[in-house]
Amino acid sequence: MAVNRQWLLASHPEGIPEASNWRLVEREVAAPGAGEILVRAHWLSVDPYMRGRISRRRNYAAGIEVGAVMTGGGVGEVIESRHPGFAQGDIVESFTFGWQECAVLAGAAARKVDPGLGPIQSALSYLGMPGLTAYFAILETGRARPGDTVLVSAAAGAVGQVAGQLAKLAGCRAVAVAGSDAKLAWCREIGYDAGINHRSANDLAAAIAEACPAGVDLFLDNTAGPIHDAVMANLAPGARVVVCGQVALADRFDQPDIGPRFLRQIMIARATVQGFLVLDHADRFELARRRLAGWARSGRLRHREDVLDGIEQMPRAFLRLLRGENFGKQLVRLAAGPG
Amino acid sequence: MAVNRQWLLASHPEGIPEASNWRLVEREVAAPGAGEILVRAHWLSVDPYMRGRISRRRNYAAGIEVGAVMTGGGVGEVIESRHPGFAQGDIVESFTFGWQECAVLAGAAARKVDPGLGPIQSALSYLGMPGLTAYFAILETGRARPGDTVLVSAAAGAVGQVAGQLAKLAGCRAVAVAGSDAKLAWCREIGYDAGINHRSANDLAAAIAEACPAGVDLFLDNTAGPIHDAVMANLAPGARVVVCGQVALADRFDQPDIGPRFLRQIMIARATVQGFLVLDHADRFELARRRLAGWARSGRLRHREDVLDGIEQMPRAFLRLLRGENFGKQLVRLAAGPG
Repeated sequence: MAVNRQWLLASHPEGIPEASNWRLVEREVAAPGAGEILVRAHWLSVDPYMRGRISRRRNYAAGIEVGAVMTGGGVGEVIESRHPGFAQGDIVESFTFGWQECAVLAGAAARKVDPGLGPIQSALSYLGMPGLTAYFAILETGRARPGDTVLVSAAAGAVGQVAGQLAKLAGCRAVAVAGSDAKLAWCREIGYDAGINHRSANDLAAAIAEACPAGVDLFLDNTAGPIHDAVMANLAPGARVVVCGQVALADRFDQPDIGPRFLRQIMIARATVQGFLVLDHADRFELARRRLAGWARSGRLRHREDVLDGIEQMPRAFLRLLRGENFGKQLVRLAAGPG
Repeated sequence: MAVNRQWLLASHPEGIPEASNWRLVEREVAAPGAGEILVRAHWLSVDPYMRGRISRRRNYAAGIEVGAVMTGGGVGEVIESRHPGFAQGDIVESFTFGWQECAVLAGAAARKVDPGLGPIQSALSYLGMPGLTAYFAILETGRARPGDTVLVSAAAGAVGQVAGQLAKLAGCRAVAVAGSDAKLAWCREIGYDAGINHRSANDLAAAIAEACPAGVDLFLDNTAGPIHDAVMANLAPGARVVVCGQVALADRFDQPDIGPRFLRQIMIARATVQGFLVLDHADRFELARRRLAGWARSGRLRHREDVLDGIEQMPRAFLRLLRGENFGKQLVRLAAGPG
């Protein structure tokens, strides 16, 4: 039989997830039904939003049941098609591929990837959900304007590195917050004007005040937690805060997040704090993807990946991400070929 | 000499203000210089924003120094004019009248009141800052749409009673949160569809969930504190939260407001939390005032005042407001006449 290795959710995590929250099983590769395609993954993605999906708590999407295949995006090759829109050999991407080597997907759950736009794994990074998140969060929800000071947390991550470069394209000053000097050096290399190491800063709010003397006009909040708090003390008049991720709360996802609230600062700055979900912008993904690909081709958008090899690495890759140990977009590369 | 009684700030309050934070003095009525007018107050206003002005903390406007006249809006009659735009006998309003019987005002700091639009004290309520706040917060920043569930805290107050009626005019369902059953009865009388007594509700979040089964689309937050928390647990997808006032924090204005943060709820709902200050909309005050006056004339906008008599009552009026003891717009009426 053709074998499909899959990661199933073994238990909902309490606090920070551990590798034991998943288990790897071998299943027979399923056959596609009418309207479906069978896809073999070349690349799988891990992303912070997965922390929410494995929680028991209500989230913007239904949680994953224990025993189900772990959710996640992937890009791979069509092995067999029973859908008129796909042919064997096509490269496709799916948000709902799952942590597995092969997936049977409804045609509507897959998107053909144009390998001419960039390396195919970029469909999981700067031409995929993270890049699209940066695009719509910075340029639309965040309304980046020339002259703005744009602060990005997790700035060397999959979303953050694109966000900073888009802020620069929009004529803004871009300030990176990241967890190591090496990450900040990379941020400077791709165009960020300043950087703050949130792990070594003595007083993060003061460091932000120094880096942003006129305040923060646009804050792309990828982390919540202490970085959020420090930025909220530094809002410029009319500031926009785009609430995009909460990776800093990964260890206490099921508990209320207690700390200083910032209603007075929001009022004083007449700031706008807005929740962001990239899927709300799906009607313009193609437009954004073409622009991102164009900027990448012309060298105005650079990108860094952090690659682990083998399906066995999925939990490790995800845990690296939650701990901020990845440097660039965290991907897992699978040995492509017949199972 | 003509005497002008004035309330000076005697000390910055620690926690909830007390009457002893002000002292009443008698001064000679000053003479207006070139471009100035001398105005005798008929009505003075107390408003929650004053809590911020007497704090040591940075706010959206400069604080009041100890020994200075307490700030506040007033409406009165021009006694003497050295400004071509004003004549003796004109009724004028000023945001910066101060807690005093007479004020010398620059022409730019006063606005002629048309007594035909409504009782002159309405320039301090539904045709003044509170009414304009409700107008712009509900109809513009909050983007009230037919079918929305609009929840208003401090719903029987100066802003809240107008806000609920404007929400009804906009085709919304209006839900009042107030601190007494008598206030809620009044809210129902003027059109609110439902009401919640936040002092007697056992579980405020559950009471809001019951009153707003599809969630809160627009929340006019006049209080911060526990009501804010309970509403944030009940946001509808696409909710707008207009951050307008923090009267519930009046006792701890100079301390950080610690409690649950709602970044995940904001993200899940793709909510927008926006700081609001009415002065940002000054370019359209006249338009809004004409509309509000028209609705009042036609009986579609009703209004309730809570009046104390005499300049001596200013601190008491303000403290009533901070404690939620007022029922309707808190005003102080002065004995008009020569000093």
